Amino acid sequence: MGNNPVVLETMHRTLDKYGHGAGGTRNIAGNGANHLALEQELAKLHRKPAALVFSSCYVANDATLSTLGSKLPECVLFSDTMNHASMIQGMRHSGAKKVIFKHNDLEDLENKLKQYPKEQPKIIAFESVYSMCGSIGPIKEICDLAEKYGALTFLDEVHAVGLYGPRGAGVAEHLDYDAHAAAGDSPDPIPGSVMDRVDIITGTLGKAYGAVGGYIAGSEEFVDMVRSYAPGFIFTTSLPPATVAGARASVVYQKNYVGDRQLKQVNVCEVKRRFAELDIPVVPGPSHIVPVLVGDAALAKAASDKLLSEHDIYVQSINYPTVARGEERLRITVTPRHTLEQMDKLAEGLEAPWWTRRRWHDSGS
Amino acid sequence: MGNNPVVLETMHRTLDKYGHGAGGTRNIAGNGANHLALEQELAKLHRKPAALVFSSCYVANDATLSTLGSKLPECVLFSDTMNHASMIQGMRHSGAKKVIFKHNDLEDLENKLKQYPKEQPKIIAFESVYSMCGSIGPIKEICDLAEKYGALTFLDEVHAVGLYGPRGAGVAEHLDYDAHAAAGDSPDPIPGSVMDRVDIITGTLGKAYGAVGGYIAGSEEFVDMVRSYAPGFIFTTSLPPATVAGARASVVYQKNYVGDRQLKQVNVCEVKRRFAELDIPVVPGPSHIVPVLVGDAALAKAASDKLLSEHDIYVQSINYPTVARGEERLRITVTPRHTLEQMDKLAEGLEAPWWTRRRWHDSGS
Repeated sequence: MGNNPVVLETMHRTLDKYGHGAGGTRNIAGNGANHLALEQELAKLHRKPAALVFSSCYVANDATLSTLGSKLPECVLFSDTMNHASMIQGMRHSGAKKVIFKHNDLEDLENKLKQYPKEQPKIIAFESVYSMCGSIGPIKEICDLAEKYGALTFLDEVHAVGLYGPRGAGVAEHLDYDAHAAAGDSPDPIPGSVMDRVDIITGTLGKAYGAVGGYIAGSEEFVDMVRSYAPGFIFTTSLPPATVAGARASVVYQKNYVGDRQLKQVNVCEVKRRFAELDIPVVPGPSHIVPVLVGDAALAKAASDKLLSEHDIYVQSINYPTVARGEERLRITVTPRHTLEQMDKLAEGLEAPWWTRRRWHDSGS
Repeated sequence: MGNNPVVLETMHRTLDKYGHGAGGTRNIAGNGANHLALEQELAKLHRKPAALVFSSCYVANDATLSTLGSKLPECVLFSDTMNHASMIQGMRHSGAKKVIFKHNDLEDLENKLKQYPKEQPKIIAFESVYSMCGSIGPIKEICDLAEKYGALTFLDEVHAVGLYGPRGAGVAEHLDYDAHAAAGDSPDPIPGSVMDRVDIITGTLGKAYGAVGGYIAGSEEFVDMVRSYAPGFIFTTSLPPATVAGARASVVYQKNYVGDRQLKQVNVCEVKRRFAELDIPVVPGPSHIVPVLVGDAALAKAASDKLLSEHDIYVQSINYPTVARGEERLRITVTPRHTLEQMDKLAEGLEAPWWTRRRWHDSGS
């Protein structure tokens, strides 16, 4: 979407009209029609009453969790082991008690939730698509537990917005695909739908939407609370008008056009099929994320370099601290525009450095 | 600078070449020639070996102080009472001991510094221009104390970059104006100059430079440490290429053209002279910041609204939490482009709501 002509035309036009910077913080001279329009669009996307835009979703997660955790008295935060660094920082900064549950493990989460009285404030913080392993959170089941034990749900859809659901609102929307497709552009929540049951959704404008910035969506009261108390929102220059206008154009485009999302999933399947045939060890998962496990930092980098220099393919190696040591990997990003020929070339290119590793391991060094 | 034609042309061109978003974090696919060029330019501006760009200077201050404070063993942070929220958050997040000294009070700072052994790591965190009162930090004298008591200096030049110094590097540069003017575009430090003596300089691209983003500048080792350890730098999508290219064009423009800075100061003096004649209570200070004290939130907002509706003048009222309760004010932003006629009109417009307050106070309500 960063090269989508509708987005670029919108940005050129906005740049000519408004210039570059926003000129201040949201409360002091840096607020404008473009910021408000983007927030309204994002609220509609998630069928929530309100949304708030931040410099990034790192800042959105950090500011929101630290504000919630510190303002809700005696709040306990339940956090999935695989949560992103921004959520971990936000929870740490809140000073609230944190309880970590095993990745996507409902039994472990329930055992930990039931140790606290129902009336004590709780937040379950988790993701829909986990970016480094490609697993998907059991959103509906976590909402069930939240209801049973009196917790708020905080869902990070950073790796899902623009990529799942009939309108690109993410995995929560995808789980009630037909209902959301039928409701179209209505801003009203669909009662009982998974997206409606999630209290707080956070997302980024910097990945599928090809822009920069992050946001939260939820109730009016919740968004107002964060707007009023989070220093990371209050004391910083807001995003440039051209940036937010471009992001909005991208959100609207993906809301109305499902083709990119469908083609991306088709291409992901094509890539995974090729890898399976060649016995290339993809970390299994239902999402669009294709992580190829290497397990060694130097080797992962060497494989990445080799792909670029010998095959003209750019695949990033992922090392510590983004993944744990010993879990180094290549993360393949498949787009809707990749061709079958390119996938063949990728599979071929990956075969070679991969055998290198096998030999390396077999030799016992 | 947000409407400077050189900046806008650069951005349109970069947008057409690179599209919108950077596409990833600095370490994973979101690094590019434009990011590196901006950092090189900023390092040169401050005559430091290295610089690092962040989503905002809020993030730069928060990430840098929290990383330094937590990584330097037994570190003590000395913080000016009037420091910005971003620095306060960074110090809090570091978990290090914090000692607050009275605003610009060298005696108080010295008394507090001398209570710790010289070899214990210390950081003095302060600003050059304080945004809400317009005072200027005694940079040289703080460097003297830092040397005497073995402390690092962390100087926030957010409200000074682009506005002071022969090349716009800020107040630290301004204090050795002739030497820096003579050294021109050389990247080498000027030994013994105030800017050389400051260890860490932070600045924004979102104010005078009319863009968005923030940065730190300092030694190679220091910048590498923050780059390697600060989650707020590592785990976030980098700024769009067009944004950083626009910011760089702005920095270069202001480095080579001193006219805007000079005219701004002339205009600030003109405005202050008019206010003095009308007995409008400006908080006194040597900088370009013109704060008019109101001391009441509702009244400050009413004065701001009145100026806009009756005089077509946009002046923002500043309320809690940006300033303490009871210290509400109007903050006048004077630009190089304001005309003498506009200043007359502003002074006239301010006279009226101001007398309202006097009457309000005189009536004892």
